[in-house]
Amino acid sequence: MTDSQESRRRRIREWGIIPGVLPTGDKNSITDINGVKVGHVTIMKGDGKLVPGKGPIRTGVTAILPHSDNIFSNPVEAGVHVINGYGKPTGLEQIKELGRLSSPILLTSTLNVPRVADALIDYVLKDNPEIGINGPSFNPVVLECNDGYLNDLQGRHVKAQHVHRALISASSDRASEGDVGAGTGMTAFGFKGGIGSASRKIKFDSTEFNLGALVLSNFGRREELKINGYPLYQLDQDLLNLHETGGGDGSVIVILATDLPLNNRQLTRLASRSNIGLGRVGSLADNGSGDFALAFSTTKKYKRNDKGKIILNHEDSQKQELPVNLTESDLMKELFQAVVESTEEAVLNSLFMAATVRGRDGHKAKGLPGDKVAAALERNRLCRPNK
Amino acid sequence: MTDSQESRRRRIREWGIIPGVLPTGDKNSITDINGVKVGHVTIMKGDGKLVPGKGPIRTGVTAILPHSDNIFSNPVEAGVHVINGYGKPTGLEQIKELGRLSSPILLTSTLNVPRVADALIDYVLKDNPEIGINGPSFNPVVLECNDGYLNDLQGRHVKAQHVHRALISASSDRASEGDVGAGTGMTAFGFKGGIGSASRKIKFDSTEFNLGALVLSNFGRREELKINGYPLYQLDQDLLNLHETGGGDGSVIVILATDLPLNNRQLTRLASRSNIGLGRVGSLADNGSGDFALAFSTTKKYKRNDKGKIILNHEDSQKQELPVNLTESDLMKELFQAVVESTEEAVLNSLFMAATVRGRDGHKAKGLPGDKVAAALERNRLCRPNK
Amino acid sequence: MTDSQESRRRRIREWGIIPGVLPTGDKNSITDINGVKVGHVTIMKGDGKLVPGKGPIRTGVTAILPHSDNIFSNPVEAGVHVINGYGKPTGLEQIKELGRLSSPILLTSTLNVPRVADALIDYVLKDNPEIGINGPSFNPVVLECNDGYLNDLQGRHVKAQHVHRALISASSDRASEGDVGAGTGMTAFGFKGGIGSASRKIKFDSTEFNLGALVLSNFGRREELKINGYPLYQLDQDLLNLHETGGGDGSVIVILATDLPLNNRQLTRLASRSNIGLGRVGSLADNGSGDFALAFSTTKKYKRNDKGKIILNHEDSQKQELPVNLTESDLMKELFQAVVESTEEAVLNSLFMAATVRGRDGHKAKGLPGDKVAAALERNRLCRPNK
Amino acid sequence: MTDSQESRRRRIREWGIIPGVLPTGDKNSITDINGVKVGHVTIMKGDGKLVPGKGPIRTGVTAILPHSDNIFSNPVEAGVHVINGYGKPTGLEQIKELGRLSSPILLTSTLNVPRVADALIDYVLKDNPEIGINGPSFNPVVLECNDGYLNDLQGRHVKAQHVHRALISASSDRASEGDVGAGTGMTAFGFKGGIGSASRKIKFDSTEFNLGALVLSNFGRREELKINGYPLYQLDQDLLNLHETGGGDGSVIVILATDLPLNNRQLTRLASRSNIGLGRVGSLADNGSGDFALAFSTTKKYKRNDKGKIILNHEDSQKQELPVNLTESDLMKELFQAVVESTEEAVLNSLFMAATVRGRDGHKAKGLPGDKVAAALERNRLCRPNK
Repeated sequence: MTDSQESRRRRIREWGIIPGVLPTGDKNSITDINGVKVGHVTIMKGDGKLVPGKGPIRTGVTAILPHSDNIFSNPVEAGVHVINGYGKPTGLEQIKELGRLSSPILLTSTLNVPRVADALIDYVLKDNPEIGINGPSFNPVVLECNDGYLNDLQGRHVKAQHVHRALISASSDRASEGDVGAGTGMTAFGFKGGIGSASRKIKFDSTEFNLGALVLSNFGRREELKINGYPLYQLDQDLLNLHETGGGDGSVIVILATDLPLNNRQLTRLASRSNIGLGRVGSLADNGSGDFALAFSTTKKYKRNDKGKIILNHEDSQKQELPVNLTESDLMKELFQAVVESTEEAVLNSLFMAATVRGRDGHKAKGLPGDKVAAALERNRLCRPNK
Repeated sequence: MTDSQESRRRRIREWGIIPGVLPTGDKNSITDINGVKVGHVTIMKGDGKLVPGKGPIRTGVTAILPHSDNIFSNPVEAGVHVINGYGKPTGLEQIKELGRLSSPILLTSTLNVPRVADALIDYVLKDNPEIGINGPSFNPVVLECNDGYLNDLQGRHVKAQHVHRALISASSDRASEGDVGAGTGMTAFGFKGGIGSASRKIKFDSTEFNLGALVLSNFGRREELKINGYPLYQLDQDLLNLHETGGGDGSVIVILATDLPLNNRQLTRLASRSNIGLGRVGSLADNGSGDFALAFSTTKKYKRNDKGKIILNHEDSQKQELPVNLTESDLMKELFQAVVESTEEAVLNSLFMAATVRGRDGHKAKGLPGDKVAAALERNRLCRPNK
Repeated sequence: MTDSQESRRRRIREWGIIPGVLPTGDKNSITDINGVKVGHVTIMKGDGKLVPGKGPIRTGVTAILPHSDNIFSNPVEAGVHVINGYGKPTGLEQIKELGRLSSPILLTSTLNVPRVADALIDYVLKDNPEIGINGPSFNPVVLECNDGYLNDLQGRHVKAQHVHRALISASSDRASEGDVGAGTGMTAFGFKGGIGSASRKIKFDSTEFNLGALVLSNFGRREELKINGYPLYQLDQDLLNLHETGGGDGSVIVILATDLPLNNRQLTRLASRSNIGLGRVGSLADNGSGDFALAFSTTKKYKRNDKGKIILNHEDSQKQELPVNLTESDLMKELFQAVVESTEEAVLNSLFMAATVRGRDGHKAKGLPGDKVAAALERNRLCRPNK
Repeated sequence: MTDSQESRRRRIREWGIIPGVLPTGDKNSITDINGVKVGHVTIMKGDGKLVPGKGPIRTGVTAILPHSDNIFSNPVEAGVHVINGYGKPTGLEQIKELGRLSSPILLTSTLNVPRVADALIDYVLKDNPEIGINGPSFNPVVLECNDGYLNDLQGRHVKAQHVHRALISASSDRASEGDVGAGTGMTAFGFKGGIGSASRKIKFDSTEFNLGALVLSNFGRREELKINGYPLYQLDQDLLNLHETGGGDGSVIVILATDLPLNNRQLTRLASRSNIGLGRVGSLADNGSGDFALAFSTTKKYKRNDKGKIILNHEDSQKQELPVNLTESDLMKELFQAVVESTEEAVLNSLFMAATVRGRDGHKAKGLPGDKVAAALERNRLCRPNK
């Protein structure tokens, strides 16, 4: 179902295009943040005419783990920004109120959110058998985009086994991108979209920190796409006129991770800046585009006591502090830049890494032709770092 | 499992206690709002020691339908207020952004939210087969409280068949109250809690309107309870000292309905006033209490066009307008009073109508002894209408 | 202009009425929080018919200083909750975004906000001459209620000299209450309202902390008033029928201070609980009532560097930490109770301490007759601590 | 103080550069919205070394009137989006709560907000003598940026006479742009910034509507600037290296007007999309940049009754309705595009139209050299419409 004749997909930087000016992390992926793991399960099955509930299936699930410990008993500080609330995520209210994430983050297809959340509950109950008996309940966090252009959306084909496999297989390798996991059936800017990631290194004094983004891209119209800040339709009329895919109403999810010990207020500010990164690629936060950003810090961790209650200031916890004498202004200036660049590059990677996928009813999402785009940018001398 | 020796439960007004001063609707229930229907499925099974995943089961599901038409194709205007975000509802973000409700509202037990949402999707797909194929997706709305004190929470015993039964059996009769539906396993103020409802009539010029509340009560400590504004622990030491039930950390859900053509901004303001009604019964919006309010208008209805898009100003739609020359100030004064009174009385009804329930591990939630409370209030001359 | 024949006003506890169960701070005032100072300037002048711009004048200004250092160069952590946004405060947006307060808090009459803010700028510039030249700007924080029932509101009679006097004269003595400062012309529940304060002590392990509230009360209708949770109109028909004062549409401002090192998220949660305290006295957060709550921590302090930028983690700063092993749940349970009780008692003190004031056009705001209220409560055995 | 040798400034389109694809309104200005008027008062005085409180003065005030009637007695529907709350506006809380604007909108220099608000009160009291006597109070709306790089910020040189002149002189001509009114002392992207405007025409069926933006630009670093989506620093190294002006921490205010009868929820969504327009020019919503957007509808008007209360559904009011059968999705798709384009072009106009201004202490803000920029774009074939 993916075009076998397509050459290996390359990330945007492999084509010599450099979005942004900050140095990337080692893998240029959200997994550069120590402890963060990503797992995907991709489900592709069947072909031809849509039979609702049967297929064809072009969908999947992606798991993001903030650290390798039990995230329920060791929540991390987090913040949420709703760019456009036209979406169906679950679990965000509690993060806003408590400023903490106590669940793996799962991404999937819209109507699959409940099934994925239910499987996530199973998974977390196994390691935390006290939940709802001698301790508090659990808040599953699942976000979504709509892959119904290629996939049998109504079928809700992501089963518990897929969710558990995504969680168990999660690794700190560079996250796979493109038409994988939750990204399997997504389309963006009239091309195949899906999963993308990128990261940035930030130095304060001599200490190095990391910030990374992972996106699930499923938004935008072809004529709105900007590559490295440059409108595609000015680059090359042929690129623009390639068989158009899907409608405009999509969505995008942005997950941000950092190893700086930021608090809920600061993480919420970071999350809100992802909107500008999305805008750089061409987003209008369209009416029907459910755009949500969630940011967490891996070094602001909590413990629970034996009744399951969150201890705010645990004596065993290694107290992470911000670099001495760092101002919020200097901190945020760097971080906002890192968020905007990582988000932009993550979306571009989701496009560059996604192969062509044909789905239900002959619908086809063309993989962005990286070679042609790179050549066009090269012709226009536009591969240089773009602030 | 309910005490058979208990006499028939009575609503608070049947004991001669009059909370509030506004006139009630005909049934003094959310079903006084024309078109609104409520359905419950109660699941009680097994006894004795908790075997997680097996039982004992004391749980259920409650469905609230804004009108009898297809709610997906005829959404109604709505608004949400988050009193305390420590909860696990699903579907609220889209209501906040779009100001519309396009789903029945389901209430259930915390960990059951995903299963109930999934069953709700099944139900809505049947009548709207275009969802996710030629039309937009569907946003299921499910809210919850934690019934783990009595119920095998981990078991998630509400199945699709229960959800569908609650939806199909919904009626415009006075909503059943107490230990029914989602209220089956809930506890409040150290007594048995659950479902309660109440309504108020409001007149502008000569036109009569209705506003109703339905609550799922699962919050508060015994010593915080106020009956008709009067602290229980001052009423009668014996009442206070009755076997205490459950912990304090609970939650409460408030659903408000009205037949006034209010917009999202106004409905959001109404929803926020429910907090004061809860405070009147003794709520502190405790740290662990996930308190959410959702308000909708039955007369501000929308239609979809043949692509499933919402038409804002449909030529066929009966244009409902507010009474001519009514000021927002006068409108809100009446409505805020109605919200506060309905919410307070709905919580009190949930207590007065819930029978004693024994659940897992010998846990017992005592039904509020209405006769003793009424007698104590009578002794203190406190049954009069309370503003 | 105040009734000379009135006996000395007494706070509610001096009448033997005990609202709430937590122990009060030493002064039962916001000034129990170490470092917090309050200053009032009261302006009463003229009598008789209103001549807009001339008088009669019944107004003033109240200053609350979080600590005795330069608050601009040493901001404190803060949070804001908007209960009902129908008001005209200035300075709140920046507190929400940055989580910090870098200004004294001033309370005054509605149309005077700009003049008071301008005078506050003068005051702060004197000690911080770098503002707007080599450093950032300054965000004045001024909140208001409408004293137009008694006062020549249009006249805006609070001048720079009054503001400066309120700031300079601020002291850590128990804050004066009733018809003083910003409270001079306010009315509440059909009686004279104004300034009130109260505080609570909270212990975690063996360490004692304080939380205090100061309110500017100008809201509520007579028939809505509850004294110690008990409806006035059930207490004593005569009390209810006393000459009614002013309309219902008013406002209330709640300022909360604590010496616990809470962050912006936690302080925002505290601020939101003040709504329940207001509800206990009878608030409906009426349409026209601009109700705002602002909470700050005196022990979460910041410094600026030589460019005026806020240092997040200053090496010189004494790092205040929450008690070890304290859970958010236990912390908030106590603090929410303290907020609700302090807010309720502060409003009651504002009523009990305000003398009768006659203002423009013969308008008269009767001081709440504490003796009669106390006697009525006594008769009904209602002076006991009320949760 | 402006460079006399500079040729006449030209708007961006006069250089042949076309930002966006939608057709502009007739004047390509916010005044294309029928009834909207803009007035400026520019204050430039003195030269040389800063003497705080004396000068040099480079400041002013800009007034935007939604219509020619009394805006206090005929408020219009409005919505607010806070992009970055690090700012000192006044009057926004009430707009958020009530969804209405009942004040002219004034823009000025940061520390001048109180003086301008006070003068605005004077102005409105004259036409509405019942305010605060027999009617409700008035909520002045003033927004600001910091012009302290060029101007004696501490001096607060905008006096009541200036405010009144700006209000009285407001006209429906194309709004003046660049270094005028509130824009007099502003800098943006290392150039002279200030006032800019643009508008778009939108057609639904055969009916034409307008949406316009007016900005006060004072944000961004030189290396972040994008002209027509293209990074300045890639265009021409000389342009980038021109004498840099001011720091990065600035702010930006966006005012949006439309003649579509939108409600508060919809206007709030429009306001939030302005962030993407700002991002297109290079905004990062920097830590210290107070970025606020306010949108209003000129055709959703209210009346007050004789007690000053807002009538929601006045019988005399011409009931404006959205075009029949228009979907929210189609409406918003067009409007979001119009907001993004208008905001981007308004910022670019503010740069292209602002002449070089020298201010305090020899600080100089260079006017963007439109000819060089246009030539560089032309060389790169980048003047074409940019989505």
